[in-house]
Amino acid sequence: MPESAASAAVNPSRAPELKASASETLADLSEGAVLARIFPRLPTAAAELLGPGDDAAVISAPDGRFVVTTDMMIQGPDFRLAWSTPHDLGWKAAATNLSDVAAMGARPTALVVAIAAPPSTPVSVLEGIADGLRDCCEALAPGCGVVGGDLSASDALTLAVTAFGDLEGRAPVVRSGARPGDTVALSGRLGDAGVGLELLFRLGVDDDGVPNLARANALKLTHPAEVAAQLTPVPPITSGPIAAVAGATAMLDVSDGLAIDAGRIARASGVAIDFDSACLGDRIEVALGGGEDHGLLATFGPDTALPRGFRRLGIVTAASIALPAGSITVDGAPHDQGGWDPYRGWDGSAG
Amino acid sequence: MPESAASAAVNPSRAPELKASASETLADLSEGAVLARIFPRLPTAAAELLGPGDDAAVISAPDGRFVVTTDMMIQGPDFRLAWSTPHDLGWKAAATNLSDVAAMGARPTALVVAIAAPPSTPVSVLEGIADGLRDCCEALAPGCGVVGGDLSASDALTLAVTAFGDLEGRAPVVRSGARPGDTVALSGRLGDAGVGLELLFRLGVDDDGVPNLARANALKLTHPAEVAAQLTPVPPITSGPIAAVAGATAMLDVSDGLAIDAGRIARASGVAIDFDSACLGDRIEVALGGGEDHGLLATFGPDTALPRGFRRLGIVTAASIALPAGSITVDGAPHDQGGWDPYRGWDGSAG
Repeated sequence: MPESAASAAVNPSRAPELKASASETLADLSEGAVLARIFPRLPTAAAELLGPGDDAAVISAPDGRFVVTTDMMIQGPDFRLAWSTPHDLGWKAAATNLSDVAAMGARPTALVVAIAAPPSTPVSVLEGIADGLRDCCEALAPGCGVVGGDLSASDALTLAVTAFGDLEGRAPVVRSGARPGDTVALSGRLGDAGVGLELLFRLGVDDDGVPNLARANALKLTHPAEVAAQLTPVPPITSGPIAAVAGATAMLDVSDGLAIDAGRIARASGVAIDFDSACLGDRIEVALGGGEDHGLLATFGPDTALPRGFRRLGIVTAASIALPAGSITVDGAPHDQGGWDPYRGWDGSAG
Repeated sequence: MPESAASAAVNPSRAPELKASASETLADLSEGAVLARIFPRLPTAAAELLGPGDDAAVISAPDGRFVVTTDMMIQGPDFRLAWSTPHDLGWKAAATNLSDVAAMGARPTALVVAIAAPPSTPVSVLEGIADGLRDCCEALAPGCGVVGGDLSASDALTLAVTAFGDLEGRAPVVRSGARPGDTVALSGRLGDAGVGLELLFRLGVDDDGVPNLARANALKLTHPAEVAAQLTPVPPITSGPIAAVAGATAMLDVSDGLAIDAGRIARASGVAIDFDSACLGDRIEVALGGGEDHGLLATFGPDTALPRGFRRLGIVTAASIALPAGSITVDGAPHDQGGWDPYRGWDGSAG
């Protein structure tokens, strides 16, 4: 019943019964047959000059440059199939890469997607991933599409997405341009994704600590915003070009937590950043420390009106002996940036 | 002793004693520290406008378009650490992607590289991969470099490379342009890589069939050309732009075997292809069926002198009822194209 399995995969509110269905697996079909099932579901890029089916694709880069970023998501360290539907995975893989493109001030134009999966994987899982990629592009970056990819065998489901963007004649907004006196501002949510992950690890597991579908689904009912922020983030992609046009002096995608990522702008720019606690909501530690928010943190000159979507969080200050470049303070008091690391943050389980 | 471990990884003739050394592992270092060890080893791209360290890179695309291809290599289905050194892996990951770019008639300009590895992986392994990427780019595509990447945790060592190319104002050479009467020609080797893989699976294993370093090293002495063609291919990258300038009507990278890949040109072009057995060497079945050769197969109009590096293999013929589009013949007799598939070709072991 591949049709019903596929529609279950498309709808994020339905359970991802990946192994319960009698649907075809990747091992049942040739690579060509699998691709024929996936391609029609993928979004077409307006910038595509030559799409899937040859050795490589050809993409338009009208201003003579292109922006590129790449990111890999792996079952276990990066996601659990008990928590994320295939549609969720496709959505998040697109959203996080689109956010990195937007953080340069660019408009996303195209993705290439390499997927590795166990031969026992139902084809409907790949169809669900394709639907998630499409729905995310259509929702967050209309005109952006998938221009090519690769299909491989593996033990762990793996998605490697590379995303491209068009700077439309503008200079890229890098991390090193913040100047003392600039306003520090954010477009997007703060802290929900980190809370969602903490909830999933604490309450989305069975009594042995194993990720559990029923308990995760219960969490989606009691904490919909936090779980959705973690599993299906909605980064403010259009805010990237808007900030660039408005003259943002620095910008990045908040992926490892506000304090860590603000520290990156501060270090690259040779400045310090002071947050105003009144702007961080009533969960200040969550706002500063939660990862995977995928908001856009930007700095704007003191005379620049904050563009649509951005709200003030603080101010850029000069580095000093007491507060060397890269320092983060809250209401003037030093804040420890902590740190997240891909090789220290994974307990080895694959979920 | 990271220096000695690193130099072992750099030298493909030395044994890849990945777990024997007392060198630091990825888990011992922060992500930033690992990247600081890798970046200086990577080649810089002449087309790089903004390199690693921000949310995304910015690459020059002077003719207003860029070529892109992506490919993932995974420990187990795609390589065994008993057979391939880290340097070999970096070399092959670059070479195979550069070949896909060249097959469009483009000059390779840049790569982005996502690597996932177990936390227990010695840093020297990543250094070796970086050295292999660099040495391959410098040897096969001078000026091409690594402009960005991603580092993740995983159970199986995984490399996802995305490569870019510049068409320099030319039309891309696609698969669908072959016409009856065109000459079918190849630049590159034929069959050695497939023989090398067969030798490794038959003789590069211990008595239980497990990939074995000592036996693989013995094979490298007795069959150096075949094993090198498999583990460290040298695709004729410069032949891609040369063929395009000479007016190639169709072209592709021979990755799944000459017969299968010629069938792709024939099917896309609505023609048949007849090989001249006298041009296929004395191992005709090996020449037609061996995978991973990474030569460039191209077609040229009957009045076009074959460009430097290409040799004639046969001729494009009109499709017919007896020989429908996509047919491959040898001296006029139909040849079965067989088929390789990522989900059928892997026995599940990780080596």
